Amino acid sequence: MRGTPIKSGEFEGWHTWEGEPFEHDLVGPFAFSVDEQGPVCAFRAERRHMNGGGVMHGGCLMTFADFALFGIAHEHLGDDVYGLTVAFSSEFLDGPKEGEYIEARGDVLRAGGSLIFVRGIVTAEGRPCLSFSGTIKKARKDKMVLKK
Amino acid sequence: MRGTPIKSGEFEGWHTWEGEPFEHDLVGPFAFSVDEQGPVCAFRAERRHMNGGGVMHGGCLMTFADFALFGIAHEHLGDDVYGLTVAFSSEFLDGPKEGEYIEARGDVLRAGGSLIFVRGIVTAEGRPCLSFSGTIKKARKDKMVLKK
Amino acid sequence: MRGTPIKSGEFEGWHTWEGEPFEHDLVGPFAFSVDEQGPVCAFRAERRHMNGGGVMHGGCLMTFADFALFGIAHEHLGDDVYGLTVAFSSEFLDGPKEGEYIEARGDVLRAGGSLIFVRGIVTAEGRPCLSFSGTIKKARKDKMVLKK
Amino acid sequence: MRGTPIKSGEFEGWHTWEGEPFEHDLVGPFAFSVDEQGPVCAFRAERRHMNGGGVMHGGCLMTFADFALFGIAHEHLGDDVYGLTVAFSSEFLDGPKEGEYIEARGDVLRAGGSLIFVRGIVTAEGRPCLSFSGTIKKARKDKMVLKK
Repeated sequence: MRGTPIKSGEFEGWHTWEGEPFEHDLVGPFAFSVDEQGPVCAFRAERRHMNGGGVMHGGCLMTFADFALFGIAHEHLGDDVYGLTVAFSSEFLDGPKEGEYIEARGDVLRAGGSLIFVRGIVTAEGRPCLSFSGTIKKARKDKMVLKK
Repeated sequence: MRGTPIKSGEFEGWHTWEGEPFEHDLVGPFAFSVDEQGPVCAFRAERRHMNGGGVMHGGCLMTFADFALFGIAHEHLGDDVYGLTVAFSSEFLDGPKEGEYIEARGDVLRAGGSLIFVRGIVTAEGRPCLSFSGTIKKARKDKMVLKK
Repeated sequence: MRGTPIKSGEFEGWHTWEGEPFEHDLVGPFAFSVDEQGPVCAFRAERRHMNGGGVMHGGCLMTFADFALFGIAHEHLGDDVYGLTVAFSSEFLDGPKEGEYIEARGDVLRAGGSLIFVRGIVTAEGRPCLSFSGTIKKARKDKMVLKK
Repeated sequence: MRGTPIKSGEFEGWHTWEGEPFEHDLVGPFAFSVDEQGPVCAFRAERRHMNGGGVMHGGCLMTFADFALFGIAHEHLGDDVYGLTVAFSSEFLDGPKEGEYIEARGDVLRAGGSLIFVRGIVTAEGRPCLSFSGTIKKARKDKMVLKK
């Protein structure tokens, strides 16, 4: 499993991705693991993740879902292949509240030679909050110029 | 025009929305104005908005686009009507870099009795980076229970 | 269960919706039923559904998926409530071929006071071909003017 | 310009694509041209394109939009490069009626080495009815096995 082990707190033993200024340092950290049901991503909702209405901001939900795309697809990405999100769509079902346990799970619907199709759901204490689909383009790490 | 005027810096005279822990305090602040071309939203890309590959994180782009949905639709929302994003889709065209001027503009495609349809583009120094579409559901501020 | 029973052929005993010039008369008919796994929609791929490359046209897949949105959500629609698709997104995973059995299944992710959120997958002989999500707006049949 | 010239009727002098059982023979034909504003796709709404409510079926709108994706992107596709739609999203703004002139126009937002991003709007007598975005994957015609 890639990433760095989390050494303390609620997600001790899970993994995270360091070196990510926005995702890990500013908004997260988010946690990743694999259990008997497959890949799982999670974090705890804090006050800083909320909007003015007292529920989680849509941008926070989508940032976490974008992280989850790569967690769900982790078996298809690796040391010499990384991924770029090229398309993302979502529906907002409900609003997570401060203090709730936020989790994302999903499926790789197709992993082809160049594109990976993923869908998933973000839940708050088990309550569906965001349905998302994403298309990841695979790229070789030895190619310095990114071409979509 | 709604929001609070920005009193100094690059976006002096533009407006922002305070009381938003995620959007304003953590990720932003983002700025909003209306010029001769219509509503415009902007911010300056900083290191904290980047991903591990040195370009803006997709979640940051989508957070800003979600803000921009409401800026673009501001004439249809007001003191007693607020909005909830119910669906959002996007395509990632290019990656903004640290230090670049990030701007979003777009159009209200339809504003009906209950739903507002918006589309727009986020640019970095004029370069298209994110194409987005969103559906906003209107809600009355005097109704305490949100029903999608 | 709404709709008209199909009286012969491969889908005898399933239901369809008549009075639909495009969906039923031109492209379909499509069949609907409910089994132990829930709502199921199906049809048999014919030559007329194909594109120039010999696989099913994307427009045919999306037409069937739009039909399936309402099949999946049928419990939330009824005699005095009908639905309008307001947003639809999809990813194309594989191409169904002539003669294959095409099926759609899915879930209602949320059924609120005015909006129903549905997602599903179209398969060809069990092979995932289209992932789709849709947002349905409920409308009352006694209101003659449609307002989105 | 690719395609076959239309020799009579309302769209005389425009082009169409033959050899398309679903798009051309069953649902269309649809017409394509390039004028001073760029690529334009059009057809005349007939009774067979309608749904049970008397407006154009969403599947018909999306079939036409899928056709339009390739019309809008035609300069990036050619004799040895064809395209596959890999992702498509849309919002339904209004319902075209029988007899109306249906047109689609749009923009190529990015044409990269492997992916083309397109967005557009379908109008009926100038009235916006469908907003759509699509991602096309380029493929070489000399490769017989399609890999997404």
